[in-house]
Amino acid sequence: MSNAATASIDNAAKSMTDIMALCKRRGFIFQASEIYGGVNGFWDYGPQGAQLKKNLRDAWWNDCVTNPPIGPDGDEVSIVGLDSCIIQNPKVWEASGHVGGFSDPMVDCRETKNRYRADHLMCICEDGDREGLIFAYLEGDDDSIAQTRKKLDKYKKRIIEDDKLCTCAFLELSANERAITVGPDVKIPGTLTEPRDFNLMFPTILGATGDWEENKAYLRPETAQGIFINYKNVLDSTRVKVPFGIAQTGKAFRNEVTPRNFTFRSREFEQMEIEFFCHPDESQKWYEFWRDLRMRWWESLGLAGDNLLLREHDKDELAHYAKTGAGTSDIEYRFPFTAPGFGELEGVADRSNYDLKQHAEHGNTKLEYFDQERNERYLPNVIEPSAGLDRGVLALICEAFTPDPDRPSKVFMKFNPRIAPTKAAVFPLVKKDGMPEIGKKLQTQLRKRFGAVEFDAKQSIGKRYARMDEVGCPYCFTIDGDTLTDQTVTVRDRDTLSQERIALDQVEGFLAEKLGA
Amino acid sequence: MSNAATASIDNAAKSMTDIMALCKRRGFIFQASEIYGGVNGFWDYGPQGAQLKKNLRDAWWNDCVTNPPIGPDGDEVSIVGLDSCIIQNPKVWEASGHVGGFSDPMVDCRETKNRYRADHLMCICEDGDREGLIFAYLEGDDDSIAQTRKKLDKYKKRIIEDDKLCTCAFLELSANERAITVGPDVKIPGTLTEPRDFNLMFPTILGATGDWEENKAYLRPETAQGIFINYKNVLDSTRVKVPFGIAQTGKAFRNEVTPRNFTFRSREFEQMEIEFFCHPDESQKWYEFWRDLRMRWWESLGLAGDNLLLREHDKDELAHYAKTGAGTSDIEYRFPFTAPGFGELEGVADRSNYDLKQHAEHGNTKLEYFDQERNERYLPNVIEPSAGLDRGVLALICEAFTPDPDRPSKVFMKFNPRIAPTKAAVFPLVKKDGMPEIGKKLQTQLRKRFGAVEFDAKQSIGKRYARMDEVGCPYCFTIDGDTLTDQTVTVRDRDTLSQERIALDQVEGFLAEKLGA
Repeated sequence: MSNAATASIDNAAKSMTDIMALCKRRGFIFQASEIYGGVNGFWDYGPQGAQLKKNLRDAWWNDCVTNPPIGPDGDEVSIVGLDSCIIQNPKVWEASGHVGGFSDPMVDCRETKNRYRADHLMCICEDGDREGLIFAYLEGDDDSIAQTRKKLDKYKKRIIEDDKLCTCAFLELSANERAITVGPDVKIPGTLTEPRDFNLMFPTILGATGDWEENKAYLRPETAQGIFINYKNVLDSTRVKVPFGIAQTGKAFRNEVTPRNFTFRSREFEQMEIEFFCHPDESQKWYEFWRDLRMRWWESLGLAGDNLLLREHDKDELAHYAKTGAGTSDIEYRFPFTAPGFGELEGVADRSNYDLKQHAEHGNTKLEYFDQERNERYLPNVIEPSAGLDRGVLALICEAFTPDPDRPSKVFMKFNPRIAPTKAAVFPLVKKDGMPEIGKKLQTQLRKRFGAVEFDAKQSIGKRYARMDEVGCPYCFTIDGDTLTDQTVTVRDRDTLSQERIALDQVEGFLAEKLGA
Repeated sequence: MSNAATASIDNAAKSMTDIMALCKRRGFIFQASEIYGGVNGFWDYGPQGAQLKKNLRDAWWNDCVTNPPIGPDGDEVSIVGLDSCIIQNPKVWEASGHVGGFSDPMVDCRETKNRYRADHLMCICEDGDREGLIFAYLEGDDDSIAQTRKKLDKYKKRIIEDDKLCTCAFLELSANERAITVGPDVKIPGTLTEPRDFNLMFPTILGATGDWEENKAYLRPETAQGIFINYKNVLDSTRVKVPFGIAQTGKAFRNEVTPRNFTFRSREFEQMEIEFFCHPDESQKWYEFWRDLRMRWWESLGLAGDNLLLREHDKDELAHYAKTGAGTSDIEYRFPFTAPGFGELEGVADRSNYDLKQHAEHGNTKLEYFDQERNERYLPNVIEPSAGLDRGVLALICEAFTPDPDRPSKVFMKFNPRIAPTKAAVFPLVKKDGMPEIGKKLQTQLRKRFGAVEFDAKQSIGKRYARMDEVGCPYCFTIDGDTLTDQTVTVRDRDTLSQERIALDQVEGFLAEKLGA
């Protein structure tokens, strides 16, 4: 260990318990409402975490909106930003299909009255030569069994590939077989009802009249629809022409029945989404462009090598809006809790013109685009690169987490300097002889240009290095006795542990080069 | 007009209709869900608005967190960031007093079944020598009248000072007088009920069990409480010592019965809040420090002169948590819709130790701080500078809005370059002779360093200038025939309309100086 050439650590060997402990200890992520016993599925970001999350969000905004990439034709891609509300007119979610279809199948236990996600149950086959195999619980007449089976079928794949907590698979069940289900809290089998759909959107009430159904609204389950409903406003108020994209970051909410895996599946989360509008004939080109570009982007932030996977969806996995499109891909990361498997970080999908069509119809408004060059009127196709900000932060944290038994901290966070929450630290060796003053001055100079730079004059230098290793600060500068005589400082490299002396007035240039800033 | 020495325009003379029209036309602010008829109290930010809002949020974060100010003792103030959830354990809002006390008084109309905010009704005195004066509607026995009168009394001031829409004041009403109230939609007086409290928090339901009361949660009505409940986690995970601050920006929600005045009183809005923890003996010092600093900060962004007001609250105006504190001030802006009066932009309040005390008690946890220097254990006092991000954006827009009949656009947006959403624009005079290529190259160079820089090769140069005047772009650079021979460009100043030629390779330095970047 302890040298720059170290290969990335196998994520399966990293302990989520250790990672979560470090996140709490060093102020990355806290349980929300911890002093009240928490609240399931919600997480707060501490000082380091808030800055890390902001750095990732800003990097995305910079690379997508203010300094957009070069497109497949050699020109800079045209993208503008947006910031739409979490609460919208509920008709938006009727048009998008979320009111009708955005749901999980749930079963109730007749004994305990508890409710479970159908695909999270332990199911045991009662008899037959497949005894021991796990099956869904099905009851009722043939028609309803067939219906239920169909409903459950689409969860089959997800369960096996995506969901390590679940020990249940809904496999082929012949009409003669009888399977029984055991809920997590009961020992008597057969107490569970058939699955029923439960909508994942958080409901709320607008205004003071208090009538629940009449004034029901929803917290958005995705930022994407906020873009579609503003597509015409953006066209009318800017000079963008198809092909172009609209980008936004923001909170979204899903009432997950069983939030889990730290911040990976939480109920409140932040997305970074682009909806890219193009001529239907160019879908394939733009789909491939965005898919490959987004994969490289995550690599550029340090998620390289074996822990990243670009996975093209099979035809039968495609969402309803993507059936006719050029394809859907997931950019997946090997989290410690999915290893050796992968978990989704970003999805890139050709949504066809599904959403614009729906809103044109439900909003009774014309959303067609007149293309002057082609002299053609059409509804653009949409390519959507949709990334999870919290998942990105979690992947960066898991990737950075590097055990090293030789260090006092036993672990260091190997963040890519571009997104590291703390860019540098300045330490006066002792609190006298003007060292703190020189250090303070250096800190003020550096943070004007690079952002978060710490100053620490307490404890032994070893303890200070250890703290900075745990927050992933790439460079520490120490002011010591020699600084007073020859105007040099020691710079210590987080990854190599190498120390060298450089001139005090070259620290800013040194950091600028190392941070690429 | 049309010269740099122009004094700021009287805001009372600016038309909100014109401002809102420009906001829509140029992509600053759109009505949320417009294609579905909107949704009352919600606004989306278009490309220019999203960038303006981000610039203001980033300026605040930079000036408060990454490059904190020099405090009253000459040292840099210690502040760390946070990013807590919108949804928390509902006990947070019981402890903070929001479940019990965060409400507006509402009255129902027995005739139409409509519900109104009590302080927004038109009330007419029935008889007596004060006929024609406006009074509250009161009925019932003496006790309930007295109670209702007391409840209404605190709204008296607000109505007169803050609320231009309201034509009603609850003045002294003797026991013999009978006042009747007319709701907005009826002509028969006396149909309104007594006021009842209506909670302003948006409710929602957590999880799938569907029991409303058991699983009720709330959207946060302020970001402040997310800081208080993480105060101990921050102390434990960082090296901050009292005095220090925790800062966060984020969405908050209030179920306003009558949202109004564009984005000024909306139901979904964003806050920028600092909770600054200090020894109780130093409250006065820090209160004055933050009050004055925050006032200067808004001035530095261009809200100068007569349109800004620092208003110290009277004793009887103080919130429950601020009764014993060093004071509360509002930093107020003269919006066109409040002129000649003012509307709140930021509040600076000494919240005493009210919130920490409440959470210590309700969370059954110790939140006292041990001060090593003083050898003393205490609950810190809290000074809170709490700013509205949307209100800040609206004030910047109203201030920037400058009618000028001599320009083709008839109006220009005089944004301070630091927060201007578009920093510069590059125009090739014609689309030939390599001018577009030179322009594109310049755009790419400039936006790497300064952010949003537009490129526009369409229409006459006058129309392009007009568009940039309306988005408030401070500098336009034109590539023309001379550029090809002598490598100079024309730079046009938004405010003075002056044009000068500078060398192409000095454009970046020119902008850096002008933007202070």
